Amino acid sequence: MSIVPLVATMDGAESEAWRTALQSALPEHRICDPRSLSAAEAASVEVAIVANPDPADLARFPALKWVQSLWAGVERLLTALPAEIGIVRLVDPVLAEAMAEAVLGHVFYLHRRMPDYLEQQRAGIWRPLDQPSAGERTVAVLGLGELGRLSALALSAAGFRVVGWSRTPRRIDGVETFAGDASLEAVIGAAGIVVVVLPLTSQTSGLLDARMLGSLAEGTSLINVGRGPIIETGALLSALDSGRVAHAVLDVFDEEPLPPDHPFWTHRAVTVMPHVAAPTDMRSASAIAARNLRTYFNRGEIPGPVDRAAGY
Amino acid sequence: MSIVPLVATMDGAESEAWRTALQSALPEHRICDPRSLSAAEAASVEVAIVANPDPADLARFPALKWVQSLWAGVERLLTALPAEIGIVRLVDPVLAEAMAEAVLGHVFYLHRRMPDYLEQQRAGIWRPLDQPSAGERTVAVLGLGELGRLSALALSAAGFRVVGWSRTPRRIDGVETFAGDASLEAVIGAAGIVVVVLPLTSQTSGLLDARMLGSLAEGTSLINVGRGPIIETGALLSALDSGRVAHAVLDVFDEEPLPPDHPFWTHRAVTVMPHVAAPTDMRSASAIAARNLRTYFNRGEIPGPVDRAAGY
Repeated sequence: MSIVPLVATMDGAESEAWRTALQSALPEHRICDPRSLSAAEAASVEVAIVANPDPADLARFPALKWVQSLWAGVERLLTALPAEIGIVRLVDPVLAEAMAEAVLGHVFYLHRRMPDYLEQQRAGIWRPLDQPSAGERTVAVLGLGELGRLSALALSAAGFRVVGWSRTPRRIDGVETFAGDASLEAVIGAAGIVVVVLPLTSQTSGLLDARMLGSLAEGTSLINVGRGPIIETGALLSALDSGRVAHAVLDVFDEEPLPPDHPFWTHRAVTVMPHVAAPTDMRSASAIAARNLRTYFNRGEIPGPVDRAAGY
Repeated sequence: MSIVPLVATMDGAESEAWRTALQSALPEHRICDPRSLSAAEAASVEVAIVANPDPADLARFPALKWVQSLWAGVERLLTALPAEIGIVRLVDPVLAEAMAEAVLGHVFYLHRRMPDYLEQQRAGIWRPLDQPSAGERTVAVLGLGELGRLSALALSAAGFRVVGWSRTPRRIDGVETFAGDASLEAVIGAAGIVVVVLPLTSQTSGLLDARMLGSLAEGTSLINVGRGPIIETGALLSALDSGRVAHAVLDVFDEEPLPPDHPFWTHRAVTVMPHVAAPTDMRSASAIAARNLRTYFNRGEIPGPVDRAAGY
């Protein structure tokens, strides 16, 4: 039996619920609160399960070899942990399905012009608006990892014309795909709706800046379910005010929760979602973490650690 | 060459556009404004194309045998026209696809709790809400004609648990179906979201009354893309105020446009859409009308007239 601490920034009830779920998924090892461990016990820890951990808490484990994240995005861990600590991110099909649902829902919300109709309702206006069919609407999906791939497939199945873009070439049935910085302007310039499902890395931070947003066709809509800093806030606000971006559905932000005085809250062309596109599912995440820990304890392998150069 | 008048209540530019589209789909006959016809010409008319016609305008054609509607819903024609005049409604796959899109969009809007999140945004509240997956959400589709069938299939493909209900038994792959009045309470009582895609007939008018809405589970949501009078307005307002119905997306109303002082406009649990779920597509509708008229002129058959007893 090994000792596996759960090092997480969350309230007591939530961390207790996680420990219970993880323990029942991995009964042969001991999942515990790091503060409950003696120095000798802490010295034996080789792997920790983490969710937004305080790096000082992890420094208590001198033999730590790797961490299993309960989140898919690991950009904070990459800067907080020493290079010799392996990082395994959560790759969960349940999470990918939730993301594809959120993307499909937000695309329909924009495609069928719900923000315009809701504004008309508030003004008491009955006015049918032009409505292209899904087949006449091009949706660009930026980021074709597991979350982006399932999202692109769901959009294609719903009848949209889908183009995909990623850093490295990917093939997806029914989706025209492009790779590399040189093609990004053309991909987003041809889309009526652009969906960001990218991870945050040194290459994607600020990827959609004023110049790149300038390549959008007038009236394009944006959905960001990746990470806030991928779209530059100031450039987005300018593009919204000029009408180049007709509407933005934002699920992620530079700072979360979104600060109370942030202009996004009251902007008429912004829909603010509190980072709910693909919440971690406790049961499936626990099962996946348990499987990864068994791979390590039984075979000595760290299962699919993050490529630190790529950032995911 | 036969004379086929277009008898429609619409403005001059719109009727001109329709006549042009219909004429180019049916060049071998003469599509015309009924007011342009001499008495002798009017006496030769056997078929008219109609959209919300004034019955007095149709009375000018003593030899009239049938009318081709440009709309799918023909409840007004059934009461306005003598029983000996055949009525052919528009059955258009383009329209069915638009309806399936609208249904999918509205279901996602409710499923992912957009009305709640939009209200939170207006109040500056950042609060993630409980979110079942599509597979955990039961959607009931009432009405399984071409529009309802495609809607149910699209919902099923998107991962929802779908139950269907219709007057007469229907089979749809992946959808559990029920038929007849006796099963309706159980079908809607088991659903989290109920979608009305029924035609308006003597049997469906007032179908969802106070008693039937009382069989919904607390917090069920409703979508009406069928016809307004199928859900009793007073009963719906009571159910919305009590919270039994959490939210209603209404695309159709007893009176359209919805009167300015109607309580739906400002109700916090109602989304008002100006009858845009499945607008007639001029090009595809013209092609279908042309095909039906050719069936009549070439073979003497009225193509698939409405069953007046059933109402569709």
